[in-house]
Amino acid sequence: MAEAPEFCSFLSDYGLVDGFVGVCKAVMLQFAPELGIIDVTHDVAPYDVRGGALALVRAVPYLPAGIVLAIVDPGVGTDRRAIVVEVENGYLIGPDNGLLAPAVAMMGGAKQVVALTNPDFQLAAVGPTFAGRDVMAPAAGHLADGVKIEELGEVVDPVTLTPGLIALPQIEVGGAMTAEVWWIDRFGNCQLNVDPVQLTAQGAELGGLIEVHLGGRTRTARWVSTYADAKPSELVVLVDSTGLISLAMDRTSTAETCGLHVGSGVTLLPPGTSVDGPGPA
Amino acid sequence: MAEAPEFCSFLSDYGLVDGFVGVCKAVMLQFAPELGIIDVTHDVAPYDVRGGALALVRAVPYLPAGIVLAIVDPGVGTDRRAIVVEVENGYLIGPDNGLLAPAVAMMGGAKQVVALTNPDFQLAAVGPTFAGRDVMAPAAGHLADGVKIEELGEVVDPVTLTPGLIALPQIEVGGAMTAEVWWIDRFGNCQLNVDPVQLTAQGAELGGLIEVHLGGRTRTARWVSTYADAKPSELVVLVDSTGLISLAMDRTSTAETCGLHVGSGVTLLPPGTSVDGPGPA
Amino acid sequence: MAEAPEFCSFLSDYGLVDGFVGVCKAVMLQFAPELGIIDVTHDVAPYDVRGGALALVRAVPYLPAGIVLAIVDPGVGTDRRAIVVEVENGYLIGPDNGLLAPAVAMMGGAKQVVALTNPDFQLAAVGPTFAGRDVMAPAAGHLADGVKIEELGEVVDPVTLTPGLIALPQIEVGGAMTAEVWWIDRFGNCQLNVDPVQLTAQGAELGGLIEVHLGGRTRTARWVSTYADAKPSELVVLVDSTGLISLAMDRTSTAETCGLHVGSGVTLLPPGTSVDGPGPA
Repeated sequence: MAEAPEFCSFLSDYGLVDGFVGVCKAVMLQFAPELGIIDVTHDVAPYDVRGGALALVRAVPYLPAGIVLAIVDPGVGTDRRAIVVEVENGYLIGPDNGLLAPAVAMMGGAKQVVALTNPDFQLAAVGPTFAGRDVMAPAAGHLADGVKIEELGEVVDPVTLTPGLIALPQIEVGGAMTAEVWWIDRFGNCQLNVDPVQLTAQGAELGGLIEVHLGGRTRTARWVSTYADAKPSELVVLVDSTGLISLAMDRTSTAETCGLHVGSGVTLLPPGTSVDGPGPA
Repeated sequence: MAEAPEFCSFLSDYGLVDGFVGVCKAVMLQFAPELGIIDVTHDVAPYDVRGGALALVRAVPYLPAGIVLAIVDPGVGTDRRAIVVEVENGYLIGPDNGLLAPAVAMMGGAKQVVALTNPDFQLAAVGPTFAGRDVMAPAAGHLADGVKIEELGEVVDPVTLTPGLIALPQIEVGGAMTAEVWWIDRFGNCQLNVDPVQLTAQGAELGGLIEVHLGGRTRTARWVSTYADAKPSELVVLVDSTGLISLAMDRTSTAETCGLHVGSGVTLLPPGTSVDGPGPA
Repeated sequence: MAEAPEFCSFLSDYGLVDGFVGVCKAVMLQFAPELGIIDVTHDVAPYDVRGGALALVRAVPYLPAGIVLAIVDPGVGTDRRAIVVEVENGYLIGPDNGLLAPAVAMMGGAKQVVALTNPDFQLAAVGPTFAGRDVMAPAAGHLADGVKIEELGEVVDPVTLTPGLIALPQIEVGGAMTAEVWWIDRFGNCQLNVDPVQLTAQGAELGGLIEVHLGGRTRTARWVSTYADAKPSELVVLVDSTGLISLAMDRTSTAETCGLHVGSGVTLLPPGTSVDGPGPA
């Protein structure tokens, strides 16, 4: 970016009960008082790097150009690097544990990566380093204040970054698609790691029926356009607002009704699919 | 309003765990980077239009002139209209399901209503429309950027809007007042749909006792001035900070102690009231 | 402060479900539209003055110069004073119940104290006073708008303020240290009211073992540098990111594993400590 960023979008697993988020914001504003900070979410499940990566990817197409600060790190206190990745429209700051990888890919890939190793742009820690407060928030604040990315530390080869771990659905012999629940939203809708193009390629179509194996049971789901198309207590499949396939019910939590959790396996059998002994015993 | 609004007050049932709120804010700021956004609350119970309408009405007298964006919509994905209502001090944006109606009335009534039908001021949806992100947040951003309300879509006759559904208490023969719990706050205080004027009209007075039927039991409550006037474990009635009658106890959750929920019926019998068989069996 | 404050850091026990926080922010912005507001946390446990005071003290070293608005008040509606305390770098506003005291001390002590008694700088309440909305938020807004502290009410002698109630650990005969859990964070780490200097003075050292009595059991904890030094299921002692001693486990909630709550007693026996019958029966 030619100019100093105006906005920082902030995602973490810090929660809102402790003051972690407030302190990180205060640190950013200390260096860049005019910075606008947008909370994406701070309720990523503790240590859930994959959940954080997915939440970030869902938001990225809508975030303003500028900085993304994303912190979910089970390895805090280890020698895990904190990095800043420059992309076409800005910078992503976070731990080098795969959290940023899908967002970086979606934003056109890394143009430059720097490890946040320059102590001149860090806070002195009173205890062990609280990387969000002492290293990453200061980096965001300094970038927004016009500091150049190269000043923040050592240049890193992008190929050495930890890759993201996001599974694709498995297409089995006969056409069954073994997918996974990626996200359960507040309303209980269950997003799968399935692109509608993949489902169409297996012979499914809007308005048609799809057999769904979940939690040891088989159910039939209709592929509809929108939540309101579902009849009372009917399970439906639809393209959700982020463009992926979700399982949904009308004003009912699908997750609760079907016993699904993030990470649950779900097998989709579009019409014409044959599998070995797919039905219930 | 003559000038573009500086502030947008935002209320929804989106919760803060998913990134819905952050994405809507990012969309508004994309069109109006200087806009100040005030979160009223995003923890309206999912789909609870009435609870959202009441939360909005409680906040409205304190919100700055400008935009109110309110989204609680069980009918998402149907042909429910999204609307913008111009009032004396600004604009309210939301679904046409009664959510905005009490706030519009409190703000002096609708001067003009427009349905958000102009695709030029909407985002292209990747899946089915996520109306908050794709239609309503862009409308807020464009209004704050100086776009005129008439540009956002078709003018709508205000009389065709869905009315708000807010019940008044019923005064029965003999003076008993059948009321309803409208709001339980974080501290367990239970606000009723009762104006102190109505209670006074039934013969109750500050310092006096009122019989209260709730959950199949009869209790006596003293009408006091403030929470701290309640003796330990005493049930009191008071005018709360929004000007309505609440049931309260000192540093104790009235809702938990009395088994009350939002929507619970509560009958108040001011002194001198007679009803058929009011007491416990 | 010579100039009007740019930022207000806001902490309360209001939660984010009701609109209390949003309304207080709207009131501040009504008087000072350019004010930047930083949420420290609003999830202090209801009425928990000590928890609020501790959360504030943890954040204070990182907050920008300006205003701190802190509201946790079991005595709301009593004749408890609302005060503003001027310190070197700004102002703290809150109830006079000890909530502000540790932060004021950490910020160098009170230079001047004023009780918020001037009705010209308060909102007219529709019911009993909601002190946050009607008295304290307006005071913050007016200070940020350039009003002088003396205009807000009567000058108060700082020695008449309610002191903070924060316990120091007790050193018993033989060197056992009876401490208390002050804070349990989102990750279940348990902060004690123990400064590492105190522990070192009792003969403990980094890398060494410390006997810990908690919940009727005795466990051995190793003093390590960082969370990641803990072996799976090992209990460790470390200096946390705010500079105090915490009990921790690697990616495991210590609070849950050891049955600790805020306020739980914990006895530390550094090596060489002797107590009467310290071990388990």
